[in-house]
Amino acid sequence: MVRLNEIRRNEIAVVPPAATDAGLVYIGRIATPWTDRLACPRMGRADGPLCRIEVFEPWVAALDGLCAYARIEVLYWLDASRRDLVHQCPASDGVARGTFSLRSPVRPNPIGTSIAQLVGIDGPIVTVRGLDCLDGTPLLDLKPDRSLFTPVAPPQPGDFE
Amino acid sequence: MVRLNEIRRNEIAVVPPAATDAGLVYIGRIATPWTDRLACPRMGRADGPLCRIEVFEPWVAALDGLCAYARIEVLYWLDASRRDLVHQCPASDGVARGTFSLRSPVRPNPIGTSIAQLVGIDGPIVTVRGLDCLDGTPLLDLKPDRSLFTPVAPPQPGDFE
Repeated sequence: MVRLNEIRRNEIAVVPPAATDAGLVYIGRIATPWTDRLACPRMGRADGPLCRIEVFEPWVAALDGLCAYARIEVLYWLDASRRDLVHQCPASDGVARGTFSLRSPVRPNPIGTSIAQLVGIDGPIVTVRGLDCLDGTPLLDLKPDRSLFTPVAPPQPGDFE
Repeated sequence: MVRLNEIRRNEIAVVPPAATDAGLVYIGRIATPWTDRLACPRMGRADGPLCRIEVFEPWVAALDGLCAYARIEVLYWLDASRRDLVHQCPASDGVARGTFSLRSPVRPNPIGTSIAQLVGIDGPIVTVRGLDCLDGTPLLDLKPDRSLFTPVAPPQPGDFE
């Protein structure tokens, strides 16, 4: 099961440095059907339930043009996650793995990334399928799925390296 | 060309809220061939040059097991980017687009996400291809590419919704 912040056998916690290198602003809030971490999907599905992303002002104008993409990348902040485990056990079997070899929400910077199916945009509300986060999760960013996006900027020297 | 923080015709800047909702810790540093924003690739290529990601302590143990994945997701902080544009022009042609419809580094939370080809891991050094960021970019996270990863945790109720 997904954890409720307990440390399990064979997990390794560290004393992390203060998280003060850069600051985030919550640009919206994600409404999903899941109000309990122990009920969330482990990974979103393209045919999952509708989820409703509300974008806050002053960022709503930044949605212009996003409707052209069938899939979008959604970045969010897993604000209920502990940040200090370098080895963790996804189940309670005592088999520990390195945090960076997992897509667990428990990580030094608990940023979730999902590719969501865009269903529609109505004013500040972006409706999608394919998320797996808790109801009320803070939104950090929206971008076109990289596989659908062609850079708009003119070529740069690095493009040819 | 990529910007050097200028505002272009038809771009819209807002007064952003303070970025104090959550804090990030830099967990490493990315070495790339590009020391000038005007020379970076617009988007990484699987056959691009080798880039060297150094992971800082106390996070090196968290790399255990990551070598099993041919592609990894790299999250980094675009610390040279302005954060206040909601409409932006990727070129100097005055055609503005919503920030969330672009993968530009200019965004309210300038988090870059790339899928990189994993070349090797040696102690704290992760060598990859496919990045497009400036030399010295701060690292935020590493995860297996979602398309290669099967959740390790036991099934949860949300998996079936």
